[in-house]
Amino acid sequence: MTRRLYALCGTDRTRPFSPHVWKTKLSLAHKGLDFDVAPGGFTEIPKLERGATTIVPLLRDGDILVSDSFEIALYLEATYRERPTLFGGEGGKATARFVEGWSQTTLHPAIGRIAIMDIHDRLDPVDQAYFRQSREQRFGKPLEAVAEAGQADLEAFSAKLEPLRHMLKFQPFLGGDRPLFADYIVFGALQWARIVSRQRLLADGDVVTDWFERCLDLHDGLGRSVTAA
Amino acid sequence: MTRRLYALCGTDRTRPFSPHVWKTKLSLAHKGLDFDVAPGGFTEIPKLERGATTIVPLLRDGDILVSDSFEIALYLEATYRERPTLFGGEGGKATARFVEGWSQTTLHPAIGRIAIMDIHDRLDPVDQAYFRQSREQRFGKPLEAVAEAGQADLEAFSAKLEPLRHMLKFQPFLGGDRPLFADYIVFGALQWARIVSRQRLLADGDVVTDWFERCLDLHDGLGRSVTAA
Repeated sequence: MTRRLYALCGTDRTRPFSPHVWKTKLSLAHKGLDFDVAPGGFTEIPKLERGATTIVPLLRDGDILVSDSFEIALYLEATYRERPTLFGGEGGKATARFVEGWSQTTLHPAIGRIAIMDIHDRLDPVDQAYFRQSREQRFGKPLEAVAEAGQADLEAFSAKLEPLRHMLKFQPFLGGDRPLFADYIVFGALQWARIVSRQRLLADGDVVTDWFERCLDLHDGLGRSVTAA
Repeated sequence: MTRRLYALCGTDRTRPFSPHVWKTKLSLAHKGLDFDVAPGGFTEIPKLERGATTIVPLLRDGDILVSDSFEIALYLEATYRERPTLFGGEGGKATARFVEGWSQTTLHPAIGRIAIMDIHDRLDPVDQAYFRQSREQRFGKPLEAVAEAGQADLEAFSAKLEPLRHMLKFQPFLGGDRPLFADYIVFGALQWARIVSRQRLLADGDVVTDWFERCLDLHDGLGRSVTAA
């Protein structure tokens, strides 16, 4: 096996949770490519591959190292052209950046607050210290205060999904009849929440829940290989 | 001239303002297709083309009638294949539905509240009566109360544009190096606000403002053919 995906985990190394790594796992499976997962904690990331990255996912594909889920998707699309497309052409590639923008500026901050203590509590002690220090600097307040603000995010979360509900009136996936990387972008965010937190962000009967379940089924149920928290 | 675009206007028939019609104007120009604009008020729409539609845009292209800006874009893409693409492939077509979802569930309701009295005040009396009745039914309160709530929308508006700011770190248009229908979707919403309201939704120095100005320049400055309110 020459393909290795470096992932982020807490104490339980069988439950990698990074939203960005999940995007890449689905991308690799979409292309029908085998890979090993190498999980590690936050403080191990800068030591990977002789300091090749400060973020995961980091993909080693033979002699090639690529980090960042979008960069990896572009790399896979260019390198494995004969396999199923992740973008459906240049327009899909460009517009996926907007989907990334929406997910990262709308969903991620909310999930980050809602699940902040869940994430903290699942980490090794050395990573807990790093996580507390870096997040308290980012938010300018104690983790516990961020978590308290997360209650409002939880109540407002469903309304953030309206753009997806509109899209789902017309088609079963962001990619149309079939999923594309754009689906994996949004899936990654919700899968992160599913794995780390017992807070339920998606309600039964919501078309977004149905879409998320379809994504969990993809590629032999890859998303279900880690159970919900 | 066999191509006619039915548009929405107020008393001043030279200032069509419907966001959806603007999407179609840009789409037709993108394809290099000539067209006449036939402006009318809200209450004239159901009488167009022997009751062909309840919404504008409505496009007559020879013997063909198509309504709805997205449907028209799909029609133009399928019919004028040899001309510049509006979607950049199937992936772009699918993902544009998400952009439509975002624009219509995030930007449109806010602009609708912010500009509600501006729109009302620009209409013919018969259309003012229709507009007040239909909007007061939709919102469950007087137009004036909706406008008051719009003040909060105005303050929160800039934050809604974060997904665009993320995308613009990577590329000048939603379509990538060049605009696609996805750009016209978002442009339409902001052009609607620009034409009907003196409220300034976009600030100088914002990358979104720069993108909007680039869109106003497209196709020989078609967007600037109607001045700001």
